[in-house]
Amino acid sequence: MTPHATPTVTVGEYLARRLVELGGAHLFGLPGDFNLGLLDEMLEVPGIEWVGNTNELNAAYAADAHARTTRGVAALVTTYGVGELSAVNGIAGSFAEDVPVVQVTGMPETGACQRGALLHHSLADGDHEHFVRAYREVTATGAVLRAADAALEIDRVLRVALERSKPVYLGVPADVALAHVSSAPLRRPLRPAPSDPVALEDLRTALAEVLADVPALTVLAGTQVHRRRAEGGLAALAGQDGVRVATLVGAKAMLAEQHPASLGTYQGAMTISPDVRRAVDEAELLVLAGAVLSDVMTGLFSHGFDPARAIWLGIAEAVVDGVTFHDVRLEDTLPLLAEVARERAFTALPPVEGVWPHVSAPTGEHRDTGAEDAPLTQHALWRTVQGWLPQDAIVVADAGTSLYGSLELRLPPGAELLVQPIWSSIGFTVPAVLGTVLAAPHRRSILFVGDGAAQLTVQELATVLQRDPAPGQPAPVVVVVDNSGYTIERVLQSPKAVYQDVTSWDWLAVPALFAPGRDVLTARAGSRAELQDALTRIAAAPHRPAVVHAVLDAHDVPPLLARLGAAVASGRTAPVR
Amino acid sequence: MTPHATPTVTVGEYLARRLVELGGAHLFGLPGDFNLGLLDEMLEVPGIEWVGNTNELNAAYAADAHARTTRGVAALVTTYGVGELSAVNGIAGSFAEDVPVVQVTGMPETGACQRGALLHHSLADGDHEHFVRAYREVTATGAVLRAADAALEIDRVLRVALERSKPVYLGVPADVALAHVSSAPLRRPLRPAPSDPVALEDLRTALAEVLADVPALTVLAGTQVHRRRAEGGLAALAGQDGVRVATLVGAKAMLAEQHPASLGTYQGAMTISPDVRRAVDEAELLVLAGAVLSDVMTGLFSHGFDPARAIWLGIAEAVVDGVTFHDVRLEDTLPLLAEVARERAFTALPPVEGVWPHVSAPTGEHRDTGAEDAPLTQHALWRTVQGWLPQDAIVVADAGTSLYGSLELRLPPGAELLVQPIWSSIGFTVPAVLGTVLAAPHRRSILFVGDGAAQLTVQELATVLQRDPAPGQPAPVVVVVDNSGYTIERVLQSPKAVYQDVTSWDWLAVPALFAPGRDVLTARAGSRAELQDALTRIAAAPHRPAVVHAVLDAHDVPPLLARLGAAVASGRTAPVR
Repeated sequence: MTPHATPTVTVGEYLARRLVELGGAHLFGLPGDFNLGLLDEMLEVPGIEWVGNTNELNAAYAADAHARTTRGVAALVTTYGVGELSAVNGIAGSFAEDVPVVQVTGMPETGACQRGALLHHSLADGDHEHFVRAYREVTATGAVLRAADAALEIDRVLRVALERSKPVYLGVPADVALAHVSSAPLRRPLRPAPSDPVALEDLRTALAEVLADVPALTVLAGTQVHRRRAEGGLAALAGQDGVRVATLVGAKAMLAEQHPASLGTYQGAMTISPDVRRAVDEAELLVLAGAVLSDVMTGLFSHGFDPARAIWLGIAEAVVDGVTFHDVRLEDTLPLLAEVARERAFTALPPVEGVWPHVSAPTGEHRDTGAEDAPLTQHALWRTVQGWLPQDAIVVADAGTSLYGSLELRLPPGAELLVQPIWSSIGFTVPAVLGTVLAAPHRRSILFVGDGAAQLTVQELATVLQRDPAPGQPAPVVVVVDNSGYTIERVLQSPKAVYQDVTSWDWLAVPALFAPGRDVLTARAGSRAELQDALTRIAAAPHRPAVVHAVLDAHDVPPLLARLGAAVASGRTAPVR
Repeated sequence: MTPHATPTVTVGEYLARRLVELGGAHLFGLPGDFNLGLLDEMLEVPGIEWVGNTNELNAAYAADAHARTTRGVAALVTTYGVGELSAVNGIAGSFAEDVPVVQVTGMPETGACQRGALLHHSLADGDHEHFVRAYREVTATGAVLRAADAALEIDRVLRVALERSKPVYLGVPADVALAHVSSAPLRRPLRPAPSDPVALEDLRTALAEVLADVPALTVLAGTQVHRRRAEGGLAALAGQDGVRVATLVGAKAMLAEQHPASLGTYQGAMTISPDVRRAVDEAELLVLAGAVLSDVMTGLFSHGFDPARAIWLGIAEAVVDGVTFHDVRLEDTLPLLAEVARERAFTALPPVEGVWPHVSAPTGEHRDTGAEDAPLTQHALWRTVQGWLPQDAIVVADAGTSLYGSLELRLPPGAELLVQPIWSSIGFTVPAVLGTVLAAPHRRSILFVGDGAAQLTVQELATVLQRDPAPGQPAPVVVVVDNSGYTIERVLQSPKAVYQDVTSWDWLAVPALFAPGRDVLTARAGSRAELQDALTRIAAAPHRPAVVHAVLDAHDVPPLLARLGAAVASGRTAPVR
């Protein structure tokens, strides 16, 4: 090679090297006729690890959880049509919840697409743009690659994922996957665009003016703080006198729940502690930091504050006193606000009382009697879990009773809760555990999922249970909360309707089908004593994966969920309004 | 009620009554926050039966197979966003393969959508049209219903499904589901538009002119004949002297394979019998009846005939001698052609020899030795099945070795083969069996599915195995063809690649997890003797569902699939070109 010759790589390699650089070294997905060449190229790249999934929806869910956990980009590779369309629900969830997942589709060759060949995996109408167009609805940007500018387009698309924390789409025709492009751009790492320094200075001035007029600051922080890896800024802010921090559902424990400034979780009229609700609703100055004010976040729009009067710090914009500041990134604006607050030097506030402990006792038929051998109740379940949760755990809770139960937990130091409160796609969490295990192998992943939800994606437990943890690394724990169907829907409407029921499974047979010959700890928990016993055995065997079948009444719900049901029933704040 | 008062029904009831009328009485799907009211209304209608599925993709697959089997419309009901997007791959398959499935989405209330409320199950960007737009790519038409013209729109959309044999989309906002509309339109059944009688007469003249010049007719019939319930016309045509009929993949046995005019299945250069291939490729006059000339159908475009010189009878158009006749329906044009052929009175042809039997012996390492206890081979598997298949069976075969193996079977009288050769979505067939069982409870459904494919949708076996057949009705048979991964992809490229492997499951544990306490016959078949024994036991117990775990070598393939692999490897006719 002469000094002037440009080294080349194939487009598949180029893409894989960018993904490794951005944290997406685990490649989720399934092979298919139109991505085999692409996969062969991508898997040549050092550091790339193939993670075959049981189906494409599960691959998208796993990639989503991986990206959430690493705070990097995660990628899945599917085949054309049949593969990519199965993943679309998962990618839409990544959009709704601000997760940068890269959907890579291996497409037919460019020429075949252009001349409208009637290929399998197509609609047989000669139009090969249908699925690209469908993906436009659920991604921030995308491209069908051409050899001529494939590297430029890959970089452009990946930067959008980085800058907006949104999923993106890359269609790679089979011929383009093998085409050679210059590897020169790889010498420089991809970075998102930085904040506009002029806008940041203007924002500083505006914040200082507003803070001068108030005696204290209440921050309501949402999931985008997590996505932008901006918890450092949040902690810096929380360290200032006169600052209190509440978090929205999905951002629970983003500020350690032991922090003296922590107000815990706010959810409008569904907030557990009246003091916390008042602290947010009646704050003289409220900062909405990375907060999406959706129905679930706001207790069905029952928040008592006026968002128009709040300071709003978004992923790339801020609004202060009605003025918008563009191109200022949350990871910069939160530390900036902390600086301004420090200069403002508020007076210290007394600690907020009565926030913890959270796991509240229900009244009525499902009240926990305290008897060790009484049938397990939601109350007993979450109380027992509260006393057992290990530090640094990643608690993954599916939409349904698991979400609402886990919201009442006070998470131990280092632990976090992974939930999907906006998209709320049941079944998301089963493949999500595969993502957390791969992204954080040194932490114990603990899944709570209802039986109805688990049925949607159950086969990914094969991938989860058959992965051997590295020596010294903990294995995941799966708790199936079996209440014979869709209890969250029973709370909302027609609890006795036939559609609320699901087929009855023997969850303890999960390892027999999905992980034959593997050493999986299994336990049925029909009472508090049985649950406690199971959890004790699990704690004593951190390297054994575990499946717990917790049996609950079909109409027993955590108090928070009961409150949601009552709110919907009252009609005042129905979720569909 | 005064004589002039118009009786009303809710929109949900109206829709359900139309579905019952059109064959869609089994309602597939899952409940979700935005479809509970809709479901309550729909389930009030006599005749409607709720079929809860384990996830929405499976619901779409089951509905597709139901519609194929009844030749009516089938419907699934999902919730907004998370539900409907999971189903989109299945609906796209219905589009590709001409199956009239109605995707019904329960949406948030009209007002919430219009004002852009940040609801869960949305992308939280205020745009509630994303999913409707995505569905436009995979459906023939659709509507988001308004109370004012809901009945008109339901009827319009359903008529498109009837007329074009394509899937359609109905979005039903939660408020509209409960709105009252006149029930008067229900007094008249929905019918598709009939053929244009003037165009039919012109077509008759054109056909007579063309037939006058030739001594015989060869028909190549495709799946659309089945979809339009036009086999009667095909049989009438086949009954004329001088007419021979070959079928495309997916239309196998559409004319009984014992019929003297039957040439069996044509697949271009992959056609098993050289005589059959020649009969089609060298036909003086070829009729393409409901035929889609896609890659799989034509042996990767290796057909030897010129489609432009053929008579083409499509779902609603015909082309004769280059002239297009519009609004002439396949169910009318096929009988019309039979009439013209009868008037033409061709001379009788000698029977075609050498077409059967089909199950051909491979050469090389996977040649069946004939030993009863030798490891099972693909050859031994399909030979054994050939000798066992009951009359009237519905054989369902997944893409992969199962498809290519089943194509070599000679189906017994009344039996049919359900496959998905255009869309080719692996995993389709597991929920499809639920559809066939419900649509044809008096026939035995027999599934052949590879282990890789079955993993994608395995949970629907719970619904399949937990349904009690009515007294005297047969139960389904599931044969898992376990070759440790994606053998069809191994044939195409990189047979040793890591992505070709899947996790190893104990398929005999399927009933333990998915159907505890049910009487399911299970058997492992590692040799021809074990397979024969299992099939004999299954035949003797028609009312017991059965799961057979057939164990095969990862690189053993049916001869037809080997031929496909060779064609791709030769590069002449790669599927991606």
